Amino acid sequence: MTDLPGIVVTGASGRMGQMLMRTVLESNRARLIGAVERQGHDWIGRDVGEAMGGGAVGVKVSDDPLEVFARAHAVIDFTAPAATVEFATLTAQARAVHVIGTTGLSGADLAKLKAAARHAVIVRAGNMSLGVNLLTQLTKKVAAALDEDYDIEVIEAHHNQKVDAPSGTALMLGQAAADGRGVSLDAASDRGRDGITGKRERGHIGFSAIRGGDIVGEHDVMFAAAGERIILRHIATDRAVFARGALKAALWGLGRKPGEYDMLDVLGLTEN
Amino acid sequence: MTDLPGIVVTGASGRMGQMLMRTVLESNRARLIGAVERQGHDWIGRDVGEAMGGGAVGVKVSDDPLEVFARAHAVIDFTAPAATVEFATLTAQARAVHVIGTTGLSGADLAKLKAAARHAVIVRAGNMSLGVNLLTQLTKKVAAALDEDYDIEVIEAHHNQKVDAPSGTALMLGQAAADGRGVSLDAASDRGRDGITGKRERGHIGFSAIRGGDIVGEHDVMFAAAGERIILRHIATDRAVFARGALKAALWGLGRKPGEYDMLDVLGLTEN
Amino acid sequence: MTDLPGIVVTGASGRMGQMLMRTVLESNRARLIGAVERQGHDWIGRDVGEAMGGGAVGVKVSDDPLEVFARAHAVIDFTAPAATVEFATLTAQARAVHVIGTTGLSGADLAKLKAAARHAVIVRAGNMSLGVNLLTQLTKKVAAALDEDYDIEVIEAHHNQKVDAPSGTALMLGQAAADGRGVSLDAASDRGRDGITGKRERGHIGFSAIRGGDIVGEHDVMFAAAGERIILRHIATDRAVFARGALKAALWGLGRKPGEYDMLDVLGLTEN
Amino acid sequence: MTDLPGIVVTGASGRMGQMLMRTVLESNRARLIGAVERQGHDWIGRDVGEAMGGGAVGVKVSDDPLEVFARAHAVIDFTAPAATVEFATLTAQARAVHVIGTTGLSGADLAKLKAAARHAVIVRAGNMSLGVNLLTQLTKKVAAALDEDYDIEVIEAHHNQKVDAPSGTALMLGQAAADGRGVSLDAASDRGRDGITGKRERGHIGFSAIRGGDIVGEHDVMFAAAGERIILRHIATDRAVFARGALKAALWGLGRKPGEYDMLDVLGLTEN
Repeated sequence: MTDLPGIVVTGASGRMGQMLMRTVLESNRARLIGAVERQGHDWIGRDVGEAMGGGAVGVKVSDDPLEVFARAHAVIDFTAPAATVEFATLTAQARAVHVIGTTGLSGADLAKLKAAARHAVIVRAGNMSLGVNLLTQLTKKVAAALDEDYDIEVIEAHHNQKVDAPSGTALMLGQAAADGRGVSLDAASDRGRDGITGKRERGHIGFSAIRGGDIVGEHDVMFAAAGERIILRHIATDRAVFARGALKAALWGLGRKPGEYDMLDVLGLTEN
Repeated sequence: MTDLPGIVVTGASGRMGQMLMRTVLESNRARLIGAVERQGHDWIGRDVGEAMGGGAVGVKVSDDPLEVFARAHAVIDFTAPAATVEFATLTAQARAVHVIGTTGLSGADLAKLKAAARHAVIVRAGNMSLGVNLLTQLTKKVAAALDEDYDIEVIEAHHNQKVDAPSGTALMLGQAAADGRGVSLDAASDRGRDGITGKRERGHIGFSAIRGGDIVGEHDVMFAAAGERIILRHIATDRAVFARGALKAALWGLGRKPGEYDMLDVLGLTEN
Repeated sequence: MTDLPGIVVTGASGRMGQMLMRTVLESNRARLIGAVERQGHDWIGRDVGEAMGGGAVGVKVSDDPLEVFARAHAVIDFTAPAATVEFATLTAQARAVHVIGTTGLSGADLAKLKAAARHAVIVRAGNMSLGVNLLTQLTKKVAAALDEDYDIEVIEAHHNQKVDAPSGTALMLGQAAADGRGVSLDAASDRGRDGITGKRERGHIGFSAIRGGDIVGEHDVMFAAAGERIILRHIATDRAVFARGALKAALWGLGRKPGEYDMLDVLGLTEN
Repeated sequence: MTDLPGIVVTGASGRMGQMLMRTVLESNRARLIGAVERQGHDWIGRDVGEAMGGGAVGVKVSDDPLEVFARAHAVIDFTAPAATVEFATLTAQARAVHVIGTTGLSGADLAKLKAAARHAVIVRAGNMSLGVNLLTQLTKKVAAALDEDYDIEVIEAHHNQKVDAPSGTALMLGQAAADGRGVSLDAASDRGRDGITGKRERGHIGFSAIRGGDIVGEHDVMFAAAGERIILRHIATDRAVFARGALKAALWGLGRKPGEYDMLDVLGLTEN
């Protein structure tokens, strides 16, 4: 058991942080060896199992990432851009794999991650589920196979607490469709359809955002022509799929040569 | 056969006009006795069966509505507001049932129809399908039974030639939801969701419009809470359902006392 | 807090038992005052909070239902037929509301519950979610409004551990459809469609059972005619909806006169 | 116009035959030069346009396939096995492309087609729509990418006149899933699920058949795991998509070297 790769989770007290720690704790392919929170957080120094309302697991929450990362094989990080950029320097120093699920990174942030990736393995993705990444690849393929007689619409549904529309994953799918067609998503996007819109423009990629209840995340990519439709759909019902994807990415990254990777690399879905 | 009620169709050359005439011609409960087009239209004087590309049916297209209506039991009219208002006076004179599927009527137009309905039977609806009218009633009922823990979203899909969003039927369903909850649709509407929208507001009724291919019309009313969703869905795959509803309305109206009716009356769905 | 109605949960260690206890513990309208397991179970005597892997909540698991029920306002019971029949006698003695989610009860079992209900309030339902019970009522109503031109199909999807098909809830929905039409479900059922089946028989009610992954429960009732379809759909994504329904039933039952009730009574959906 | 490839349609009076002829008549890439029906049919000798209830098109229905095929570049044939086998000999003699949409061919029939294909181009497919063939290929790919944690279910819906279940297209999709996994469909099939079935067996491929109204054809391939699902869906709403696919196959086949081809060849979807 002690030979299993050691994983650290950042942002330990958050909803996703807790999900990540549970996933690692339940895995028989990795062990949780550290948990990080920001200075002053009331979880600092507590056992993470107890902090989550269960029994002790022998791992204490720390506010010293450098010390914890130095003992880790991989760090799984779904936090915020500023923290993630700082962690990237530390994981590179520690020669630990850095799995990044953080969203909203700026161009400047991405440049810093690129620099860090010269010395470390970074795996980064907007959505870590196997299903969504597979769907992204299928979307590109179908968009390339069909001509503009097939209108493309991306429809997503999420819980009522989500603050942005369309979802990052919907945009990722729209980008895959645009790539497949060889067009610019910015030029082709049709968002927020409302009022007297006129006829749908041929070649456009439409987006719709549905919000309600506690929907974890559902995405449809529809290709609609006269007389037929193809719909590629992904339904996530448990955030654990994102955590399992992140752990898979961490294990995949062990021993790779430094560089930036995404989930298509991890899943072996990259086209050549 | 000659004892069957005689039906006139206005706007005969249009897509819906032709669908209406075919439906009457195929019915064994009514017969087509007239077809009206505007002055100067090249169908005037031609047999409607031949004008539609088939064999003769013994009915010629006329540009004199008064003469034709005088011989009719009912007039089915999916045209434009100005024509419909004019026809309403003539059907009232002729004591013929006036079935109106025309959309986009203004308040002034509706006032004129109301006046005409003092002397004639008018049946008017934004959507004449049995299914949609039933769905409207269910929506009102469910919205009344559930509290605001259930977020309401109306999602519709139509063909790529449609120029407005959301569809009139989607708005009708949204109105039914608002009525069921006892709120104003104008105040509760959440349309064209895009960008940084913030969290969904409790009590709002959201609308999404999907456009693609030749989709005849699909409508979902979703009630989404924590852990469960109810979805009321209608799918129309053939415009004939609207024509059959209109013919049903025409036959239902025969012998009724003057007044304005809707499809809930025709279908016996009115709650008391 | 101590004035809140006291609830007992039976079958405490099971997946549904734990869900029920968590729901009561999190509620501010009731408090958990007891938990029952069978003699010899290793949870007996332990604090239920700790037994579930969390902190202590001050309620110990007991193997003496009579003693525990005597202190309860209501007992929530999702166990097995033999246990439920025995508990019904004890709850009647204790004058506690008995909420029963147990399935698979035989005619003989139901007769015993009926006897117990002469002295106690029993609320029993195959599915305690608000949504499914509402859908059942809508199904009956729509089936009554539409004639046999509308083919009725009930489609359900559940996780891959479910051992029976179609689900009890699907059968409940099929029964509601048959009731609405005034036909016998046994005579109209069309199950396990496979091979050369011949054309669909008019008036039949079809059932399909989809199995996969960890789907909590999804049910569609489809009414399909030429050119249009109405679909009534329920999606459950969290078993907590059943637990919340059960707690609601328990609170509703307080102070009622003895008798057997179902969720339509609890939800005020009974038609008169 | 007279330089366009000449097409013959067999089984001219049937629903699919008429759809095929209309598609060819409306095309600007081919022209209808013949229509075949069996001896004694009352359409023999009539103009096909008039026989279909419209204006004359200058093509008469014949009961002499050999004479008609001799003038054709391609023959489109959605008839019955015995007729198709006979036509295959004649098209080979005539050096005309033979597009076959006929279903229910036996092993012996297929052997005869294979013999004919030594001298002629045969394009044969169970479903000629672009969408379904694309979906078949995606299904194989996704089944290969995902392990048995993903339960595969094929769900189809068709009109109430269909006599077999599951549909040929559903079986084609199931075969593609089995191929992707490298298993035998016969061994993995789970059809007609009903009663006490026990838990779903890992690795099985389930089938469900929904029947109602006039549904043209809908197919879902679902991959369901813990926490997520991928669904590949095709919806056909107009049989014209099959006719357009057949015409595309006919034009594609012109000038090819003799042999048997399928729609993946026509659509350029064949993997190498």
